[in-house]
Amino acid sequence: MRTFHIYHPDEAIRSAVREKIDNLNKPKGSLGRLESLAEQICMVQQSLTPRLQHPCHLLLGGDHGIEREGVSVSPREVTWQQMINFTRGGGGVNMFCRQHGFDLKIVDMGVDYDLSGIPGIIDHKIARGTRNFLYEAAMSQEELDRSIDIGARLVDDCAQTGCNIICIGEMGIANTSPSSIWMSLFGGIPLDECIGAGAGLNDTGIAHKREVLRRALQGFLGASHCNHRAIYPLPSGRAGEGAACTNPQPSTLNPQPSTINPQQSEEVIRYFGGFEMTGAIGAMLRAAERGMLVMVDGFIMTACMLAASQLYPEVLDYAIFCHSGDESGHQRMLQLMKAEPLLRLGLRLGEGTGALCAYPLIESAVRMVNEMNNFKNANITKYF
Amino acid sequence: MRTFHIYHPDEAIRSAVREKIDNLNKPKGSLGRLESLAEQICMVQQSLTPRLQHPCHLLLGGDHGIEREGVSVSPREVTWQQMINFTRGGGGVNMFCRQHGFDLKIVDMGVDYDLSGIPGIIDHKIARGTRNFLYEAAMSQEELDRSIDIGARLVDDCAQTGCNIICIGEMGIANTSPSSIWMSLFGGIPLDECIGAGAGLNDTGIAHKREVLRRALQGFLGASHCNHRAIYPLPSGRAGEGAACTNPQPSTLNPQPSTINPQQSEEVIRYFGGFEMTGAIGAMLRAAERGMLVMVDGFIMTACMLAASQLYPEVLDYAIFCHSGDESGHQRMLQLMKAEPLLRLGLRLGEGTGALCAYPLIESAVRMVNEMNNFKNANITKYF
Repeated sequence: MRTFHIYHPDEAIRSAVREKIDNLNKPKGSLGRLESLAEQICMVQQSLTPRLQHPCHLLLGGDHGIEREGVSVSPREVTWQQMINFTRGGGGVNMFCRQHGFDLKIVDMGVDYDLSGIPGIIDHKIARGTRNFLYEAAMSQEELDRSIDIGARLVDDCAQTGCNIICIGEMGIANTSPSSIWMSLFGGIPLDECIGAGAGLNDTGIAHKREVLRRALQGFLGASHCNHRAIYPLPSGRAGEGAACTNPQPSTLNPQPSTINPQQSEEVIRYFGGFEMTGAIGAMLRAAERGMLVMVDGFIMTACMLAASQLYPEVLDYAIFCHSGDESGHQRMLQLMKAEPLLRLGLRLGEGTGALCAYPLIESAVRMVNEMNNFKNANITKYF
Repeated sequence: MRTFHIYHPDEAIRSAVREKIDNLNKPKGSLGRLESLAEQICMVQQSLTPRLQHPCHLLLGGDHGIEREGVSVSPREVTWQQMINFTRGGGGVNMFCRQHGFDLKIVDMGVDYDLSGIPGIIDHKIARGTRNFLYEAAMSQEELDRSIDIGARLVDDCAQTGCNIICIGEMGIANTSPSSIWMSLFGGIPLDECIGAGAGLNDTGIAHKREVLRRALQGFLGASHCNHRAIYPLPSGRAGEGAACTNPQPSTLNPQPSTINPQQSEEVIRYFGGFEMTGAIGAMLRAAERGMLVMVDGFIMTACMLAASQLYPEVLDYAIFCHSGDESGHQRMLQLMKAEPLLRLGLRLGEGTGALCAYPLIESAVRMVNEMNNFKNANITKYF
């Protein structure tokens, strides 16, 4: 995988940023979350007069081999149907992009349907869906590298128009499944606690999904001649007994996220990821490398940001977590990254809709820094 | 006080509204809180194609006699200074009104300063502040009636431009104090649990504020020859012992909100309220009477909506609760009205800023109803 050069923003400006925000015409801290958001934006842009320019929304689509196992309430054909629907402007993502002035780029990263002739869809198809990670790695190393590159180049295209803030959404039936596994492995959280209803599974459906993902994770851990022992070690007391090469039982194990190094993380990403997800990771990393803000949507995009941060922890400085869904798993994943999402509206549509809804708050934070009087020019008794 | 004719929206249209929202191109319920918001807007407007027109923000200012007791961290002169600052465009409320296209009306309801010559301030001054409710009623019945009328007429002025949604903000140093007492009396919540730090009191300041408000409430309950016994009865076991005419100890009493009738509520409103608050109540009631949406801001405006709903419970059908602050008291008051606020950003600036920040979400809900494809025209397999 290509190397990204991502750094924490230079701290030198922080005291000036804080001084400016604290001296605006309001009791200190009284604009709450908008103030910490404004500080982050100033830091990322290294500016006391931040600007949001040409926001772009990347809507990445891809299909998943694991869908064949019936882990989703929706059949895979919905992926391509929705991709076409988005080109017609009638999806949730369309209306919010119109509302907030986002340039929408609809990208086929790996949809299982020939979309090449459809106007409005950017064709970066890597394959017609990933392979089924119940039996084998979802993608090859070459496919992973390509999808990361494509994501990065999409961001470069956005930046060429002057864009300095991107949002990413996904369309990929069954993509909560790889997200759950990433969350478990990267977050050190038992798999069962990472699995929810997706777009609307009932209890039987959830039980089936749990069973499939448990087997898939078991297969992954057993497959590579114990290469993944460090990722998913046996419970204390059994380690070192030479038992690690038997198939471990993920549900009884306690994942140790701290032991995962970037190389192992890349392997986890490759084994389970969808092309739209690895494309998103490439986009997130490239955006951070370029000093752009990255708006993070719901469960799947949060899992992608978690994965990206396993490779380059500094990417989190550029991430604005926009929306927390109702799923407890999502909230837990956000906590892993110490994220304080802007909205909690119970959206679970995907496509990046939750993130897009938060854009006006980001604008409000920027306005605050640029437009609000300070106490001196407002002639207010400073009483706090 | 004038009579308002406020009714629940006609239920006849609800099933059609729900059917339209459920058949939009998304898994049912997947736009979360936006869906219930859209339903409310459709019901208020009695329309399947709702519209938001000419949003107006009423920023009402007034001073409070109780400020003389040192219950606020800020001195009363900040009220008039901020009112002037708002006319210059540099306040928090100004930037959010600009961002979201609100017509801002800055109204002097009772500021303790001569603002009559200031361009941009609408002069409806009733008096230079209310009286000190530690010793007497904050306003006379005539003043209450006038302030309610003014609030109502301000809404009529907005409606003349085609406005069908209003937001209300306040500027009034010390106005968390009457809000806390209203919350206690109307909500049946012990007074101490209704009192917080306001704009930034320290522990000593809060303790002092508690003591002042406790005495004020005691005075009110004792003053009117036990007229208020029904509002704040003695603890069970002592009732009917003839002890009710001694000054009760509010902190040890359990308020019984269900026993408060509208006439008593009006008395509570008059005794403690500020002119900006009673003006807001008039505006809320008139907006509901006209079938307009009312955006409700933070602690003080939530207290005003609670008070308005004591007079006319139907007003709540028209209320969009926009923001919940960090204060536990605010959240509890919202629960009293079964409100599900749109934002939780920890704002505590007042002026209506929290509510204004939520406006794009209201727009998103309206767009959803009007712009999103339904399954039929999107040609999507309906799988849920």
